[in-house]
Amino acid sequence: MSRQVQRYLDQIRAEFSGVDAGELADYIPELARVDPDRFGVTLSSSDGYIYESGDSAVEFTIQSISKPFTYALALDRSGPEAVDAKIGVEPSGEAFNEISVDRATKRPKNPMINAGAIAAVSLVPASSPDERFALIQDYYSAFAGRRLDIDADVYASEKATGDRNRAIAYMLASFGVLDDDPDDVLDVYFRQCSLKVTTTDLARMAATLARNGVNPLTGRRVTDAAVVRRTLSVMVTCGMYDAAGDWVSAVGMPAKSGVGGGILAVLPGQLGIGTYSPLLDAKGNSVRSVLLCRRLSEELGLHFLTVARDARATLRAIYQPCDGVRVYEAHGDLLFCGAEQVVRTVDRGCEDFVVGILDVSRADDVDEAAKVLLSGMSTALHDQGKAGFIVDPDRRVIGDGSEFEQVRYRTVEDAVDAATAFIRGQRSGR
Amino acid sequence: MSRQVQRYLDQIRAEFSGVDAGELADYIPELARVDPDRFGVTLSSSDGYIYESGDSAVEFTIQSISKPFTYALALDRSGPEAVDAKIGVEPSGEAFNEISVDRATKRPKNPMINAGAIAAVSLVPASSPDERFALIQDYYSAFAGRRLDIDADVYASEKATGDRNRAIAYMLASFGVLDDDPDDVLDVYFRQCSLKVTTTDLARMAATLARNGVNPLTGRRVTDAAVVRRTLSVMVTCGMYDAAGDWVSAVGMPAKSGVGGGILAVLPGQLGIGTYSPLLDAKGNSVRSVLLCRRLSEELGLHFLTVARDARATLRAIYQPCDGVRVYEAHGDLLFCGAEQVVRTVDRGCEDFVVGILDVSRADDVDEAAKVLLSGMSTALHDQGKAGFIVDPDRRVIGDGSEFEQVRYRTVEDAVDAATAFIRGQRSGR
Amino acid sequence: MSRQVQRYLDQIRAEFSGVDAGELADYIPELARVDPDRFGVTLSSSDGYIYESGDSAVEFTIQSISKPFTYALALDRSGPEAVDAKIGVEPSGEAFNEISVDRATKRPKNPMINAGAIAAVSLVPASSPDERFALIQDYYSAFAGRRLDIDADVYASEKATGDRNRAIAYMLASFGVLDDDPDDVLDVYFRQCSLKVTTTDLARMAATLARNGVNPLTGRRVTDAAVVRRTLSVMVTCGMYDAAGDWVSAVGMPAKSGVGGGILAVLPGQLGIGTYSPLLDAKGNSVRSVLLCRRLSEELGLHFLTVARDARATLRAIYQPCDGVRVYEAHGDLLFCGAEQVVRTVDRGCEDFVVGILDVSRADDVDEAAKVLLSGMSTALHDQGKAGFIVDPDRRVIGDGSEFEQVRYRTVEDAVDAATAFIRGQRSGR
Amino acid sequence: MSRQVQRYLDQIRAEFSGVDAGELADYIPELARVDPDRFGVTLSSSDGYIYESGDSAVEFTIQSISKPFTYALALDRSGPEAVDAKIGVEPSGEAFNEISVDRATKRPKNPMINAGAIAAVSLVPASSPDERFALIQDYYSAFAGRRLDIDADVYASEKATGDRNRAIAYMLASFGVLDDDPDDVLDVYFRQCSLKVTTTDLARMAATLARNGVNPLTGRRVTDAAVVRRTLSVMVTCGMYDAAGDWVSAVGMPAKSGVGGGILAVLPGQLGIGTYSPLLDAKGNSVRSVLLCRRLSEELGLHFLTVARDARATLRAIYQPCDGVRVYEAHGDLLFCGAEQVVRTVDRGCEDFVVGILDVSRADDVDEAAKVLLSGMSTALHDQGKAGFIVDPDRRVIGDGSEFEQVRYRTVEDAVDAATAFIRGQRSGR
Repeated sequence: MSRQVQRYLDQIRAEFSGVDAGELADYIPELARVDPDRFGVTLSSSDGYIYESGDSAVEFTIQSISKPFTYALALDRSGPEAVDAKIGVEPSGEAFNEISVDRATKRPKNPMINAGAIAAVSLVPASSPDERFALIQDYYSAFAGRRLDIDADVYASEKATGDRNRAIAYMLASFGVLDDDPDDVLDVYFRQCSLKVTTTDLARMAATLARNGVNPLTGRRVTDAAVVRRTLSVMVTCGMYDAAGDWVSAVGMPAKSGVGGGILAVLPGQLGIGTYSPLLDAKGNSVRSVLLCRRLSEELGLHFLTVARDARATLRAIYQPCDGVRVYEAHGDLLFCGAEQVVRTVDRGCEDFVVGILDVSRADDVDEAAKVLLSGMSTALHDQGKAGFIVDPDRRVIGDGSEFEQVRYRTVEDAVDAATAFIRGQRSGR
Repeated sequence: MSRQVQRYLDQIRAEFSGVDAGELADYIPELARVDPDRFGVTLSSSDGYIYESGDSAVEFTIQSISKPFTYALALDRSGPEAVDAKIGVEPSGEAFNEISVDRATKRPKNPMINAGAIAAVSLVPASSPDERFALIQDYYSAFAGRRLDIDADVYASEKATGDRNRAIAYMLASFGVLDDDPDDVLDVYFRQCSLKVTTTDLARMAATLARNGVNPLTGRRVTDAAVVRRTLSVMVTCGMYDAAGDWVSAVGMPAKSGVGGGILAVLPGQLGIGTYSPLLDAKGNSVRSVLLCRRLSEELGLHFLTVARDARATLRAIYQPCDGVRVYEAHGDLLFCGAEQVVRTVDRGCEDFVVGILDVSRADDVDEAAKVLLSGMSTALHDQGKAGFIVDPDRRVIGDGSEFEQVRYRTVEDAVDAATAFIRGQRSGR
Repeated sequence: MSRQVQRYLDQIRAEFSGVDAGELADYIPELARVDPDRFGVTLSSSDGYIYESGDSAVEFTIQSISKPFTYALALDRSGPEAVDAKIGVEPSGEAFNEISVDRATKRPKNPMINAGAIAAVSLVPASSPDERFALIQDYYSAFAGRRLDIDADVYASEKATGDRNRAIAYMLASFGVLDDDPDDVLDVYFRQCSLKVTTTDLARMAATLARNGVNPLTGRRVTDAAVVRRTLSVMVTCGMYDAAGDWVSAVGMPAKSGVGGGILAVLPGQLGIGTYSPLLDAKGNSVRSVLLCRRLSEELGLHFLTVARDARATLRAIYQPCDGVRVYEAHGDLLFCGAEQVVRTVDRGCEDFVVGILDVSRADDVDEAAKVLLSGMSTALHDQGKAGFIVDPDRRVIGDGSEFEQVRYRTVEDAVDAATAFIRGQRSGR
Repeated sequence: MSRQVQRYLDQIRAEFSGVDAGELADYIPELARVDPDRFGVTLSSSDGYIYESGDSAVEFTIQSISKPFTYALALDRSGPEAVDAKIGVEPSGEAFNEISVDRATKRPKNPMINAGAIAAVSLVPASSPDERFALIQDYYSAFAGRRLDIDADVYASEKATGDRNRAIAYMLASFGVLDDDPDDVLDVYFRQCSLKVTTTDLARMAATLARNGVNPLTGRRVTDAAVVRRTLSVMVTCGMYDAAGDWVSAVGMPAKSGVGGGILAVLPGQLGIGTYSPLLDAKGNSVRSVLLCRRLSEELGLHFLTVARDARATLRAIYQPCDGVRVYEAHGDLLFCGAEQVVRTVDRGCEDFVVGILDVSRADDVDEAAKVLLSGMSTALHDQGKAGFIVDPDRRVIGDGSEFEQVRYRTVEDAVDAATAFIRGQRSGR
C-alpha cells in the first residue's frame, strides 16, 4: 500500500538525477575521489517504516551532520547550563568555517559552526580522547540503530590538513572555552566527522529526533525530549548556515548538511529524512539533496508549521458496523504524513475485514499528496482481494472525473450497504 | 471542566503580577500615561475556545504586533515574488529601529523590523493612503473577529515624533524599495500601529494563524495556508529581534511583541495567545508578557517542535461498550493541548453517557500538564452527577498515592464492569 | 624659471587626458550634462604662486569637497568640545552615503561622510538657514580668495532628489545629533554642495590649509592653526572613504574628493592642489584626478611624511663672495617643494647678480624632481644673459654624462673663480 | 644650552610619575613581575642628539613595537608587491589580538595587528627559523645602533602560552597567507617580541625612521626612504589600534605601543621618541606613555601636519657683520624642533663668536615652546662668558615685561652696535 510513497520517491529521485551541477569537495583527496553520480534518499516514518530510493546503502562520511548529535550528547552528559556557558544558540550569519565567536561573551555563536562543534566535543566528559570518542561513536550508533565505523583514510586526511580547525581550537583555548588540550579535542572531532553513514542511517537518526529521542527501529530511548527539543531548536535557527530564514520559509524542517554530501532533515513527530549526493554548491551543501528536501517539503507539505495542523487530525474513530466491514473515520486536516499513516493503519488491519471504508466527510483540508495516497488505497485493497470505499460527499479526496469515482459514496450508510453487497457477492462464489 | 485551565492561568498571572520591573514606553506621552499595573492574558484554542485572565478587555495599541499582519496582507495582495523582491526573510540581529538593509540587495532584512514593515505597507496595493489603511484595518479586523479602531491621540503623537521612521522611509525610497511617497506610506504605518486591541483580540488573531488562516470565532477564512506558513516562518526566525535562537529554544512559539506592551504568540495548529502588560524591558518587550510566555511554554509544553508529537495522538476511538458508558481511547503522546481537547470533548459529549471512561493504556508520553487535566476530569464529571474512570495500567496519568487512585482501572473490561455497577447503583436510588 | 614646473604639469595632464574611463554622475540631470572631456589642474605654492593647466577656469560644483570647510567653520564657531560631542573623528570604512553612526555614541563617525557633514552644518551657529548659509559662503570665499556663488540648477535638483540625505538628517534628529529642523539644515547643506569652484579656487583653498589658515593670495588669516590641524588630521584618516590606508601610503596628502569631479589635496606647509575631471569611478572619485594626484605625489615626492625631510633643508645661507656673484647654500634633503622654492628664490634675486652659484655640497638627499629643477636653473639664467653654476662635488644634482656637466664645479672657490672670469668676459664685450 | 629641553622633559616626567592608574600585563608571569614604578623617556633629534629622563636605561621587551620594523624588513627583502599580496594597509578598527583578516582578500588587514605581524615574519626570506631571526635581530640592532638581545624567560613564556597567536597562525596558513610552517613562523615571532630595548633604543630607532632610514648615531643607512615612508604611513593609520583618528588629531606622530610598556613615536624629519612605563590601560597601551606623548605633542607642537610649517623655516642666513659677532637670521614659523635646532646651532658655533645675535624679525609664527627655548639662549651664552641678543621688533619671542627685555633689540644695527660695545667692554677688562 506504501507503494505509492515508494513510487513518488523514486520518481523525484530520478528527476533530480539529471541535475549535475556542483563540485566534489576537494579539500582532502578522499572526498574528491567519490563517485559524483551517487544519489540516494531514505525516509523513515516516526514509527520506523523505511522508504529507500537509489544509493541508500552507500556509505559516506557524516562530516558536519555530526554536529547536532555531539551537541545533544554534551547536553545529555554536561547539562544545559554547562553547555550554555560555552556555546550560544544564536544564528551566526556566517560560513561554517568562520570563527564566529560572540564579541562580548567569547562563546562560539552556536553548535552548528565548527567553533561550536569543537567546543561541544570538549563538553562530553571523558578521561581520554579515546574514551570521549567511544562515547560519541556509541551515541551516534544508538541513533542510527547500528554500529557506525570510521573511515580511516578520511580521518587521516582531515587530521593532516585541518589548519583552519586548529586555528579555531587554539582560539577557543585562548578564550577559555576549551579546557582540554586543543589537539586532543580536535583529534576526536576529526574522528567524529569521519564516521560512515548511509542515507538510511541518517533517516533513522532523524526519525529518532522526530520521535523525541526514541529510536523507532530499536525502541530504545537514546536521549530525552528536552535534549531533542533544544537540539532541533538550534537546527531551526542555525542549521543551514546563513540562510536560516529562507530555509525555514521554504523547507521548514530542522536540518543539517555535511560536505560529505549528506543532508539530514527532521519533521518533528513525523518523519526522518536522509539524502546523499556528493556534488556540492558554493556553500558546501549537496545540490541534489537541497533540491530534494525542498521538493519533498513543498509537495508533501512537510513544513513543521504546516504539519502541526495534523495534530487534531486523522483517525478519530475506527469501528465495525457489521461483520467484515471496518470504518475508519478521519477528522481534521489530512496532509501527507497523516494520510500515509491512515493508509498504513488500514493496511495493517486488513486481515480483519473484507471491506475498508474511509470516511473523510468530517475532514477539513486535504492536500494533493494526501489525495493521491488515499484514493490509491482502494486499488491496493483490490489487489488483495478486498474492497476499499471512500465516503466523500464534498469531493475532498475523489475529484470530478476521477478514475476512483466508483468507490466514492455520499454517506457511511450507502458505503456500508455497498460493502455488505460486496461481501455477499464474494461469498456467493465470485 | 476547563476550569482547570482557567485556574492555572489565573494562578500564573497572579504570580507574575508581583513583578514590577521594566519601564513604560516614553517616546510619546500617550504611552507613558497608561496604567503600569495592567496585566491581562487570553488563550484561544484553535477551535475558538477562549480562556481570559486579568485585564483582557483593556484596549492598547497594537504597535509592532501589526507587522506580521501587514506582511501577510502584502503577500495576499501582491504575491510572494513581489514581496520577496522588496523584503528579505533573514534575521537581522539588530534592534527593531535599526535600518537593517541588506548591503548587497538593499532590501530590508525582514518584515519584522521597521524598515521591512514600512516596505510591507507600500506593498498593499491601493490608490490612496486612506484606501490602503482601510484594507489594513479590515484585514486585522477579520483576524480579530471584530472591528478594530484607531487611537487618535497615539496616531497624532507617533506622526509628530517619528523622525527615526521618517529616516527609514526616506532611506528605503532612496534605495528604490518604496515606490510611493515616503510620507504617505508612513502615515498609513503610523495609523496601523495605532490600532487598538485587547489580549482577546490578539489571542484570536493568533488562533487564526494557528488555524492556517481560518478565524475560529467567525469560521471565515481570512487568508490561505501558504501566506500563514510564510508569515509564521518569518516570525520564528525574526519575530523576537536579536534573540531568535534563545526564543526558539526556550519558548518555541512564533511570536511578535509591541512597545504598547502586548505579545502575540502562535502555537501552530493548537493555540493563540495574547498578553498585555505595559512595563517594558530594555529591548522594548513587555517584561511580564515575556515571563508569561516562557512559563506557559515550559509548563504546558507549548513548543512547536514538541507539540508536533500530538500529531498522531489523542482520541483514536470513541465507542459505547454498553448503554450509558462511553470509552474514549487516547493514543500517542498526551500534552497540554491534546489533553485540553480530550477534556473538552468528554465535556461536550457528557449528556450522552453516565460514565465516561478514558483509556490511556495505549498512550505513549503524558506530560505534567496533561496529567493534571486528565486526572481532574473525574472530579468534574462527579460534580455533574456522573462518573469518570481512567484505564491506566502503567500509571501514565494516575501516579502512586494519587487522590484519584479509586477511579483508576487496569483494563477496559474492569472499568466497564465498574461503570455498569455505578449505573445500577445510581438507578437503584443511591 | 618655473617653466619647468609648468611644462611638467602640462605633460602629465596631457598624458592622463587619454584616460576616458569612468562615468558622469547621474543622480541629478545637471551633473550628467557636463562635458566629460573637461580636465584641469592647478598647483598653488604655499606662498601663493599658481601653476595652471587645462580647464582650470571652468566652474563646477564643490559637492563633498565642502565637507572639510564646513567642519572647520563649525570648529571655529562652536569650538572643538561642542563639535566632538556631535561628530567623531574615526574612519568609517564605509561609503560616503552610508549612515555610519557610531553604535555606542550615536554620533556620525566623522565629518567627511554625509551624516557628519550634515551635523557640521548644524554646528554653525545662526538664527536662520539664510544666515547660516551666508556664513558658510563667506568662509569658503575667504579660503578661495574670491566670491563663490551657487549653481541654482544643481541646488534645485539636489533638493528635489535628496531622499538619502533626508533619511540621514532625520536619523540624526532622532539621535539628538541635530538640534535644528532637519529640512532647514539640509537646505543649507544642499546649497553648500552647490557652490561653484574652479581648480584654481580649490588650489587656493588647499594652499590656505597648507599655510595653516592664512590665504597666500590675500594674506588674510581665515582660521587658526589648531582648526587647520584638526581638519587636516581628519582628512588624513577619513578623507578618501574606505581606502585611507592606501591613500596615505600611496599619495600621502590630506585630500577630499567630490562627485562634481574635483579633488582638493594639501601638502601641509608646502602646496595646495586642485583638480577637475567629471568622469567618476565606482566610488565616486574622479578617475583622472586620482591618477594625477598619485602621479604628482610619486614623481614630485609630495608625501607629507617625506616632505618633512625638507624641514631642515634648503637655503641655509645666501651670500655675495664678490661683486656680481651670489652663492646660495642648500642644506638637508632637497625634494620638489624645496627645490621649487630655491629656483624661485634665485629667480627673484637675479637682478642683483650676474652669476648665481648654487652650492649643494652640503645637501643630503636630492630626489629626481629636484634634480631636474635645479639643473635646469642654469639654462634659465643663461636665457636671461646670466650664468648659473652648481657646486656639486658628489654629483648629487649633475649626474655623470649630464648635459649640464660644464656648469658643475667641485668647490665654491672654483665656481667663484669661474664666475669672476665669466663677468670679466661679459664686460670685455662678449 | 639644551638644558632647557632637558629641564622641560624632567618636569613633565615628574608630573606624570604621580599617575599610577593602569595594570601590569599579566598574561605571562614575567611581565607581571616588573617594577610598576619604572618610568623613562628619551628624545632623539634627527641629528642624533639625545635627551634622557628617568629610567631610560632600563631594559624591557619590545613586544608589538617590533611590528613596524619587521614589516620594514619584509618590504626591504621581499619588495612591496610581495608584501602587499599578503598584508593590507587599512585600519582594522579592532583590537590587536583579533584575527582581522579581510573578508574578501583573506589578507590580514594591516601589519600592526598580530595577524599581519606574523605574516610579515614569514615574508623575511630565510632558509631556517634561526636565520630568519638573525636577520630580524640584526635589522632592529642597526636601527637602535647597538646589539639587542633576547629576554629568554619572556620568550619561553610567550611560547608556552600563545594559544591566540597559534590560532592566528593556523588561520593564516589555512588562507594561504603563510607559506612556512606556522609553528616555525611563530617561534621567530615570539623571539622578536622578546628582544630587550631601553627608551633610548626606541628613540634611536624612531630617529632612524625620522631620518628616512639613516641612523643618526651611526650614520649608517639601515633602509631606504620608500620603505620608511610606507612603514610610517601604515603607523599613521593603523599604529594605535582602533583610535587612529583620535591619535592623528591629538598627537599627530606615527607611533607604536607594546604591552611591555613602551611607546615609540616618530616626528618625520625631526624627532624620535621612546617612552617606558609598564602600567597599561584597558587597550594595552602604557598609561603614562600615552599621557607623555600627548603632552609633548601638544606643548612642543610635534604634530606632523604642524611641523611641516618648519619646512621653510629656521636659519636662512648666518653671517658675521664684524669680528666676534655672528648673526643668525631665522625665517618662517618657529616651533619646537626648529628652535631646538637653532639653539644647538648657536651652541655649536659659540667658540667662533663673542656675541650671538638671533634675528627673528622675519619669522612668521613662533609657538610657546620656541619662545622659551630662544629667550633662554641669552642666559646660556651669558653663563659661558658671552652674550646673546635678540632682534625682535614685533615681540615674537620676548613679550612685554619679560625678564629678557634687556637683550631685545629692534634692528640688527642696534644689536650689532650693542655687541661691539659689549666686546669692547669685555676687552677693556670687565
